[in-house]
Order: sequence, then C-alpha cells, then structure tokens
Amino acid sequence: MLKVEHIGIAVRSLKQAVPVYETLLGTNCYKTELVASENVKTAFLRSGETKIELLESTKEEGVISRYIDKKGEGMHHIAFEVADILAEMERLKQKGFHLLNEAPKQGADNKLVCFIHPKSANGVLIELCQEQKEK
Amino acid sequence: MLKVEHIGIAVRSLKQAVPVYETLLGTNCYKTELVASENVKTAFLRSGETKIELLESTKEEGVISRYIDKKGEGMHHIAFEVADILAEMERLKQKGFHLLNEAPKQGADNKLVCFIHPKSANGVLIELCQEQKEK
Repeated sequence: MLKVEHIGIAVRSLKQAVPVYETLLGTNCYKTELVASENVKTAFLRSGETKIELLESTKEEGVISRYIDKKGEGMHHIAFEVADILAEMERLKQKGFHLLNEAPKQGADNKLVCFIHPKSANGVLIELCQEQKEK
Repeated sequence: MLKVEHIGIAVRSLKQAVPVYETLLGTNCYKTELVASENVKTAFLRSGETKIELLESTKEEGVISRYIDKKGEGMHHIAFEVADILAEMERLKQKGFHLLNEAPKQGADNKLVCFIHPKSANGVLIELCQEQKEK
C-alpha cells in the first residue's frame, strides 16, 4: 500500500457539505464527478497527498443513501493507493480478506478499484485503488 | 490544514486488530502508546505521510468503548495536522464550527489536539493536531 489515496465521506447534500469542507480545510473543491455505476456524485478536496471525497447519492436506493439511512452521515471508506491492484487483491485474498469484487472495477477519479468487506478490517470499508494509465 | 496526520479506528482488541492491519498495509506497527487521560491504548502504522491509529478502550465506560457499543468497530476520527493550532481553533470557531475543547490538550504521539464536534462536519469527528516541540 503506497498511501492513503482518499477518505470517502457520505453526505446528504454536496451543496451543503462542500462549503463546510472548503472552510474546514482552507482549500477549494477542485473536482466533482458523477459515478453513474455507483449512483453517486463525488466532490474532491486535497489535504496533503490525500484527498477528501464527499459522496452524495443520486438515487434513494443507492449505496450511499442506504448507508446514511442506517448510520447517518460520516466516514464511509478509506482508500489506499496500490501499485498493482491485481497483485494486492491476490495477496489479500490469500490472507483471508473478503474482497467485494472479484475483478477490479472502474471507480471515480480515473481509478481501478476493489473493495474489501468491513468485516475483514474491523468495521472499516477498505478500497484499493490504482491510477489508470492514459489511453 | 497541512495533511491528514492520522485516521483513528476504534477496535475492540489491539491484539486482534494490529496483525490484521499489519497484513493489510504490509507494514509493521511501529509504536503503541497508552493515553491515560482518554482511557485508550493506541497502536500506530504508517501509510505514506498518514498514520493509521488503532484505538482500544482501557475501560468499559471509556469513549471508545461507548462508541463501539453504539456504532460497532470502525472509523472514529480524522486528524488533520496544523501549523498553529490556536490560530486554526480561532479561525474555525469564528466560522461557526463547534470545538469540543476550549484549549488544546495533550494527545497521543506528542501532539497538542483539539476536537471538532461531528455535527459541524457532516458526522465526522475531526481532530486538529500540532506536533509539540521537544522540551
């Protein structure tokens, strides 16, 4: 694992949350992105080498919407950058970690991603992500 | 805010959780510390410029114990490093953030810390921390 690439935070409204985090961090949101496959709108802010990724659901039955209904707004996942996602997935699977997807999938911010079940990591949803090369 | 200094994760048992995170991150825990004032034992692992801080309660009525009873194990707080904690506290107070301590207090890892109420930051408990100079 190379670093904490980002921390995902589930929020009800980006319109409300983005200015809060802009003020908190003293920096502007530099990108928003729709991830249609996950039914989320994301907004990114930088803090050192790590990003804060605010996540708003785009539909009522979306994963973020259900998370907020159950747990309230708050920290949703930690994403670690890896150099070789296939190798890391294989390594962690061998060690007994429960991967939530068998193959890497397309995430926000031009990344290949794989999630690890919170039960494998003391209640923390872990994301592995690898920057995709330019096509 | 300079960077994400650490991410605090509430766990029932460091003995169980430390090996899990050592395997996950591919790095060894490099320090454990008792923070008597907070009734927690902490264990630190590095990931890039950020630390993962695992937190185990040292007593039943401790803040981490109550957190786990209510929400289960998982992400507990995000700590941002600041250059001048008094200035940041004053700035955020002026902006309407609800600080949980009026003056900086002694935290783990030789830091002065101040917490911000989760209601001020979309459900996320925020810690500001400043490295203390050697005495």
